[in-house]
Formats: sequence, structure tokens, C-alpha cells
Amino acid sequence: PHPLQRSAGIIGAPFSKGQSRGGVECGPDRIRAAGLLDRLQQLGCAVKDYGNLTFEDIAVDEPVRGSKNVRAVGSANQRLSEAVQAVKKDGHTAVMLGGDHSLAIGSIHGHTAAVGPLSVVWVDAHADVNTPLTSYTGNLHGQPMSYLLYELQSKVPVLPNFSWMKPCLSSQDLVYIGLRDVDPAEHYILKLLGVKVFCMSQVDQLGVARVMEETCDYLWNRAKKPIHLSYDIDAIDPLITPATGTPVVGGLTYREGLYITEHLCQTGLLSAVDLVEVNPLRGRTEDHVHSTVSTAVDLLLGCFGRLREGNHLPNYSLPEP
Amino acid sequence: PHPLQRSAGIIGAPFSKGQSRGGVECGPDRIRAAGLLDRLQQLGCAVKDYGNLTFEDIAVDEPVRGSKNVRAVGSANQRLSEAVQAVKKDGHTAVMLGGDHSLAIGSIHGHTAAVGPLSVVWVDAHADVNTPLTSYTGNLHGQPMSYLLYELQSKVPVLPNFSWMKPCLSSQDLVYIGLRDVDPAEHYILKLLGVKVFCMSQVDQLGVARVMEETCDYLWNRAKKPIHLSYDIDAIDPLITPATGTPVVGGLTYREGLYITEHLCQTGLLSAVDLVEVNPLRGRTEDHVHSTVSTAVDLLLGCFGRLREGNHLPNYSLPEP
Amino acid sequence: PHPLQRSAGIIGAPFSKGQSRGGVECGPDRIRAAGLLDRLQQLGCAVKDYGNLTFEDIAVDEPVRGSKNVRAVGSANQRLSEAVQAVKKDGHTAVMLGGDHSLAIGSIHGHTAAVGPLSVVWVDAHADVNTPLTSYTGNLHGQPMSYLLYELQSKVPVLPNFSWMKPCLSSQDLVYIGLRDVDPAEHYILKLLGVKVFCMSQVDQLGVARVMEETCDYLWNRAKKPIHLSYDIDAIDPLITPATGTPVVGGLTYREGLYITEHLCQTGLLSAVDLVEVNPLRGRTEDHVHSTVSTAVDLLLGCFGRLREGNHLPNYSLPEP
Ligand SMILES: [Mn+2]
Ligand SMILES: [Mn+2]
Ligand SMILES: [Mn+2]
Ligand SMILES: [Mn+2]
Ligand SMILES: [Mn+2]
Ligand SMILES: [Mn+2]
Repeated sequence: PHPLQRSAGIIGAPFSKGQSRGGVECGPDRIRAAGLLDRLQQLGCAVKDYGNLTFEDIAVDEPVRGSKNVRAVGSANQRLSEAVQAVKKDGHTAVMLGGDHSLAIGSIHGHTAAVGPLSVVWVDAHADVNTPLTSYTGNLHGQPMSYLLYELQSKVPVLPNFSWMKPCLSSQDLVYIGLRDVDPAEHYILKLLGVKVFCMSQVDQLGVARVMEETCDYLWNRAKKPIHLSYDIDAIDPLITPATGTPVVGGLTYREGLYITEHLCQTGLLSAVDLVEVNPLRGRTEDHVHSTVSTAVDLLLGCFGRLREGNHLPNYSLPEP
Repeated sequence: PHPLQRSAGIIGAPFSKGQSRGGVECGPDRIRAAGLLDRLQQLGCAVKDYGNLTFEDIAVDEPVRGSKNVRAVGSANQRLSEAVQAVKKDGHTAVMLGGDHSLAIGSIHGHTAAVGPLSVVWVDAHADVNTPLTSYTGNLHGQPMSYLLYELQSKVPVLPNFSWMKPCLSSQDLVYIGLRDVDPAEHYILKLLGVKVFCMSQVDQLGVARVMEETCDYLWNRAKKPIHLSYDIDAIDPLITPATGTPVVGGLTYREGLYITEHLCQTGLLSAVDLVEVNPLRGRTEDHVHSTVSTAVDLLLGCFGRLREGNHLPNYSLPEP
Repeated sequence: PHPLQRSAGIIGAPFSKGQSRGGVECGPDRIRAAGLLDRLQQLGCAVKDYGNLTFEDIAVDEPVRGSKNVRAVGSANQRLSEAVQAVKKDGHTAVMLGGDHSLAIGSIHGHTAAVGPLSVVWVDAHADVNTPLTSYTGNLHGQPMSYLLYELQSKVPVLPNFSWMKPCLSSQDLVYIGLRDVDPAEHYILKLLGVKVFCMSQVDQLGVARVMEETCDYLWNRAKKPIHLSYDIDAIDPLITPATGTPVVGGLTYREGLYITEHLCQTGLLSAVDLVEVNPLRGRTEDHVHSTVSTAVDLLLGCFGRLREGNHLPNYSLPEP
């Protein structure tokens, strides 16, 4: 489908309590300031900006079984879930600008609530599938997938401010791309559940084009469902996108990262996108921040039909002398 | 063919009026200063340096239908066309060191005038196929292909100082490699004419080796003609070659860029090479300039038979103790 | 085999007289300081550190037929050969931390003396197969392979302090990966002997996964023998590993470099590894040194079973709430 037939509903989620590094709450405004809306419109895409969410201030939020800011994360994701539902009811492709990756809980929950079962493509250096009981750090941005998967329900304790949500994703409807820093417990879980993973070794072996073909074949083997793309900017190599909280060497190239978005866009099934973990305070130079943010914008443009071969509007006619 | 059987005829074209950024006229001397001639000779290749062209000074050169320095570009390319014809008549593989990419007009025109119909491989981030009427910038380095293609003749207005040339290339004898920043009008033209394009998405998908195989298959399907390689240094990723006027993220790697030259050299059909848009004033550090210039030299060595596996002269014998 | 079933016997070889740049003797301690031993143990791998070798001080070591420090290199390699034999007799996979690449003489000699005929995978920008009579520089780190190959015995003069060793490797049991800076004499030798080479052009063409498949197919076609991996850090691109004596543009990516180790580890035949030419004094910034050293560590972890998809111990069980 041409960008003309698309519309983007943009939600800013300036939330950082799923991890410990300040700055990731500035992601949404920096991505907007880099021209996201204008550039989407130049493509021919309709855009509605739903603005930034505001989040409840939780005065006392003591760690729960070692996990930090649980109440704040639960509350923020409840708001986000509602916002995503509203965007989907308005008929847009939802774009959630993070903020940290704990926000995928609300984004995927709300998306499912609005449109039914999803296929999820999770592009990340990390699997983010620790349970509160396996996490080394207690940061919830390393745990969202454990809350979302049906199969892990019995492994996750009851947590305050999470009663609004239940698991909503089957591990068979999930594909990971880009993994290269996976904790032992996470590796155990991925093997136990038989989750489809294209870690960086597989990207090396197959090439990104075949990874994307196999991703879609795998997901569609069950059913063609709306696709939720949850894109952690740290999937991309830190030489390109250093301004993020947990960079890991050996990532996707800019070109591979973009190819993923182009391919998913062309399926016509892309229904929501998270772009998370852009942290402008983590770049050591302004160049680092600029490269990170502009890569984020380019990935989002790829999701809405921008092609490297070029684009033109259907009614274009060539001027004659 | 071994480098020994090759000879390079080098033309410097210190011309920058096809675009607005000073410095690209220093390209030829910087590329020579990096040792191009010596290194070609060490390979066993004969070299003749025809020196730098001098260009007519055009006192008044008002924009024509928005395009800038039209008279200067027309005049410079007329001189270049004659110089390329002389080099080809002397039996060399022509090497045109730019200068900006508007020089491809004279280079391809002169090459065709000397040897007849060509196959053109255009390696660039950009398609450079705007007409004067579609260009956003009015810079002629974004337009040369529209002057060269038979099929666009009716779309290009009559311009001062261009009466010496006529279109000389069929769109079926052209392959683009490396595109990733294509204007809407350019995209329209490429689709309209059915031009063979390997944009960066295709390079990602096929890999550079298959791109080169398909490039040659496509061109030779019509006829094996002499090959004109027009290499814009901005095809290479700006992390490697930043010292250029219009860098675009997501380019060819150094290795891919070099592979293209090695492959074309091995066809035995490479008859002329443009190496353009090296702008020593656009690097922010001396490292940037050095990396850009030395990449340019390596690309040219690849065109004349340097192999990464090594080279040795046919008469080599191993010393014994 | 799981990392649990492996054990690493680590030999530091702080030797730099095979080349002219001070600093490469600091490699072993810098690689240890980056956490190599701890990280191997975290994988489940047993580790024994044999400490650093000390080398005989040679008071007078005049060049022999142009080659420098011949007596020192001969003597150091004799000690290293004995140390590697001891490590192999203790049942470990030998890890030799260089130091410069002339140390491969003792490492491969000792390894062969302990376990019999080897397959050698030599990962390097350079072929290091000059004889003392063909070397331009007289540096022995560019010559080790000429001392090791049966087929070159008649081409290498008798040298002082080398009487303890004889050639011990057939050119058919050797595969090169990563070459891109090969002297004419070296190229002549590689062609003369029909050595299997995957230079960077072939890596570009085939991709690293197929290179590794073909490497193993080629070696095993003769017989499955223990594998000696001799890894020169300059095989990796200098953008990643700049802190080395003779960097060459256009190298392996971090990912390709790592893939080689993962693949060889999974053969179960990896019996010794050299990691050489890390020179902490050659990095212009501390970042350069850090990136070089931590890449070296990652390559060694890859050799001992670390996987980018993650690892977990066999007895892992998931905690329940
Ligand atoms: Mn994440
Ligand atoms: Mn991550
Ligand atoms: Mn160009
Ligand atoms: Mn260009
Ligand atoms: Mn070496
Ligand atoms: Mn080397």
C-alpha cells in the first residue's frame, strides 16, 4: 500500500522508570523535533499527534521482590494501553514513542484489546523476557515479555498496579530479531517455550532479507494477524545509535535495521510500532544523539512506506519545456 | 587481463559549478597526491597523466529556468568531452577525476564519441536524473543523466552552451547501484523508463556479488559494449567517505564499493571511469579527508586490476637461499 | 560441546621482537585485565592460567639476511613451543595471548608436537608467508608461515636459534581467512602451493557463513584433525580494532570475526587458539584500545562456547513465585 493510504497516530510516552538511566523520557520530543511528522506527511501519509501521555506520580514505590518502580510501571502502562486503544479505534497505525521498553506491556496490551490477537516482531539486542524472579537488575524494561506471554503466567508473581492486565500473547506469535545479550534465565525460557529467535548469529548466517522472509513465513503459518513491531533502538549497532541505555556491540547495521521496517511495511499488516530506548542524554556528543534520533526517524518512515528506491505520488506528471 | 596489459589515461577536471559547495575542484590534485599514479605503476599498469583541464571563465551566467551556472557547465563539459576523446584515441582506459558529477555529461559524451555505444554503470547515492524543470536545487550535478538519455530529450529545455552535445545513451544501457536518496520526479522517471536500479534495499537483499552478476547479465543481454563506470564517492557510506558534498547515511561499505570495481575490471570491458564528488573541504577532520581520498584511490586501483588476494608480475621467481 | 566440558589453558606471550612497534608485549596483560578468565568461568568453562612466559635476553642479535631479531624470535618460540606442549599434555585447549604473530611458529610447532598433524585456520589481513629472502621489512611476524610449511623448506635459509624446529604443516592443511594486504612474493607462493584462501573479496562474495562451511569441508576432506586457530586481531576492521601494528582498511566486521570463532568452536575440534597483535600503545584513544581488547576477549569467548543466542547451564531451573 502506498504511504497515501496510511495514517499514523502518534503517542509520546515520556517514561523512564522501567530502568535507571535518566533521559529516555526525552525520546518522544527529540524524535518529533527531528521532523518525524513533517517527513511522514511529505510521503503522503496522514498524521495525527496524540501528544505526550502524562503519568501518575507514585509517591512510595518500594521494590517488589527486587523489581523497581513496579507501581509506576504498572500505572503508566495502564494509561498507555488506553491511549493505544483510542488510536486504534480512530483507525490509525499506532506509533508509540518511548520511553523505555517496559512500555511494550501497555502498548501490546492495548493493541490486542483493540484489534484482537497479534503477531509481535521484537527487534532488540535483548530478549526482555526476565521474570521479576530472574532479573539481575530489577529493571522492568528487561521484563515486559514475561508479563505478556500466556506461557509465563505462572512464573510471574502478582504485582501491584498490574491487575488491569492479563497476558495476551502466545509465544508462537512472537519473533525476536537482533538478540546478542541474553541472560541465562532468558535463554532457558526461550528454549523452553520454543520461541523463534533470529539472534545476530542467524542474521550473519542468513542475511536480513531471508530473516524477514522466514519471520513472515513463521508468523503466517498460524494466521495472518495484525503485526505489532516493538523496536528497541539498541538493536542497531552502537556505532550508529549510541544514545541508548544498554548498548551492545555487534548490532544490526543501519541498512539491516531499515530493511526490517521496509519489509514489514510491505506486508500491509503493520498495525502498531513501538520505538523505544532512545536516550538523548546517553550520547557523548551531539553527533551521537543526532545519529541515534535520525535513525529512529528513518526506521519510522520505513514503517510508513518510505522506500530507498524513491517514492512518488500517484498523480505525478513530468513537466515539459 | 593482468594490470600489465592496462594503461590509464588520467584527466583532472577541477570543476565545481555543478553544485554549490567549494572544494570539490581540489579533488583531482588530492587524489594524485595520495599516490594514485605510483600505485598504478607498481601494479604494472602504464599511466599517462594528461594533467588538469582549465575551464573557460563565464562572466555572466544567470540561472536558466532555475538551473545554475548552465553556461559554465556546458562549456566545461565540452572541453572534457574533447579530452576524453583524445585519451581514448591514445588507447588508454580513461580516468576522469572530478570535480562534481555534472562532468559525467562530457565524460560519457566524449567516451561515446570515441568508441560508440556504451554500457553505463552509475554508482551513486543519487540518481542525478532530474531535468532542469524538476530539480529542487537547480544544481546541474543532480541532472547529468537527463541530458544523456535519448528518452528524456523532449523533457529537457534547450540550454545555452549545450548545443555541442546530443543525448547518446539508451536507458536500457544504464544500471544504477547504491541509490538511497531519490527525488519523487526522479523516481517517476526511473519507473517510466524502466531503468535497472539496484538501490540499497536491493544490495541488502541480494548482496553485492549477485548485484554485480545481475548488472552484467542485464547489460550484456543487449550486447557486450565498452563499460563506462561513473562512480560518485557518495555511494560509499559517509562513515568511510565523509568528505563529499551530499553525504547520505546507509551507503555501500568500503568492501562493497571495492567489489564493484574488481568485478567490472575483470570483465575486461571497462573503458572509462569517472571518480567524482571528492571534496577535501567537506571533511571535518584530516582523517575524514584522508579516508575519503584513499578510498577513491583504492576504487581506482580496483578498476585497474588490483586484487585483495594479491597480485604478482608474471615473471616473478622466488629467491632461494 | 557445552562450555562446561571445556577447559582453557592460558599462556601469556609478551613478545614483540617479530616486529618493530613497542606495545604488543602488553597484549596478554591487557586481555586478562579485561576479564577474560572470569568471563570464561561464568560460561562454565574451566580455566588454568599458566602465566606469562619470560624470554631470554639476546645481547647481540644482528640482522640475518635482512631479517631482524632472528635469534630472539627463535629462542622465544622454542620456549613457547614447550609451554604449549605442557598445556596440551594437561588436557586443555591452549590459548596463546600474544605478542606478535611470529609466535605462531612456536605455538603451532608445540601444538603439533603434542597432538600430531593439525588443521590450521589463519585469520589475518596478511598472509605472513614471506621468507627471509622476500620480506620487504625484515620483520619476522610477516614470515612465520614460511617456517612452518613443509613445502617452503628449501626456500628458507638456515637461521640461528631455529635448529630446534622443523616444518610441521602441509599447505593443504591450511586455510586463510580475511586476507587483503598480500605482498607479490606471498601471492606467488600462495598460488604456487595452491593454498586455500578466503580473501576479503571471497568473504564479500560468499558471506562468512559459507566461508566457514567451505573452510571445514576443505580441511575435513583430508581428515578431521585438531584445529589450530591463529587469529591476528588485524583481520578485523580497524574501525573496530585499531590498536594493532599494521591495520588495513576493509576488514572483517566484529560480527564476521565472531562468527568464525563460534563456527570453529561448534566443530568440537578446536584444540589451540592464538590471539595476537593486540597493541595497546597503537590506539590513539582509550576507546580504541578498549574496543580492540574487548573484541579480542569476545573472540576468545566465542572459541569456548559463548553464543549470541545466550547460554544457560544444564541444571538451570526457573524460579516460581
Ligand atoms: Mn528492549
Ligand atoms: Mn534492548
Ligand atoms: Mn552523483
Ligand atoms: Mn551522489
Ligand atoms: Mn599476522
Ligand atoms: Mn596481520
